[in-house]
Amino acid sequence: MGESLAGVARYFQAPVFVVLTTLNPDGQPQSSVVWAKVDGDQVIISTIRGRRKCDNMERDPRVTLLAYDPENPYYYAELRGTVTLDEAGGKDLINELSLAYEGQPFTHNPDHVRVVVRFTPTKVFEYTDS
Amino acid sequence: MGESLAGVARYFQAPVFVVLTTLNPDGQPQSSVVWAKVDGDQVIISTIRGRRKCDNMERDPRVTLLAYDPENPYYYAELRGTVTLDEAGGKDLINELSLAYEGQPFTHNPDHVRVVVRFTPTKVFEYTDS
Repeated sequence: MGESLAGVARYFQAPVFVVLTTLNPDGQPQSSVVWAKVDGDQVIISTIRGRRKCDNMERDPRVTLLAYDPENPYYYAELRGTVTLDEAGGKDLINELSLAYEGQPFTHNPDHVRVVVRFTPTKVFEYTDS
Repeated sequence: MGESLAGVARYFQAPVFVVLTTLNPDGQPQSSVVWAKVDGDQVIISTIRGRRKCDNMERDPRVTLLAYDPENPYYYAELRGTVTLDEAGGKDLINELSLAYEGQPFTHNPDHVRVVVRFTPTKVFEYTDS
């Protein structure tokens, strides 16, 4: 525990799927599975304007990420931090993530406005046992 | 979405690892990876007295569980609900979970007081696409 993001970066990029938890208006945690990538001292995620998680992060930027090693789920990392949201670059990001996770460009839905989520951890934990 | 626990029970038992999210005192989500089993309309988890997640659940019973199909992470289920905690049966439960996940009895640490967490979902979601 007390790690840096660089030390646990392998959990927060392809091919590992990441669990993103936001806060609902009543404070209840709301979790989903997302693609991610690490960029310097941030984790980058894509979402869609109007989605529950997007609304939640706009209202309360406190977010927690968890990802475990698919080969050994006793190895996992938890990041607690905050996010900023930006539409700029949203289409490029989802394409880049799709290429990394699926090996092919993303099929855009023209009704979706893509949002770039930049997560900055304030606490980094790595667990290596049950 | 709008499923029953019975409809998504396969996600919340061996061999699938479950992400448990509790609420820290300041409201920030706190996530960890746990063993679980389904018992009727509840999901049962083991924890240890004094652990961060145990303290959190004692103070605020609102918890969210997420688990994804290890073979296909685009299939996952999210449960939002509340928990009750009880020390009775704590040793038997961790043994049962260890047998289910690891095929062997649990090696007890005599310094640990095992707590049974009974989670009752108020919302059940199943996602079957990205």
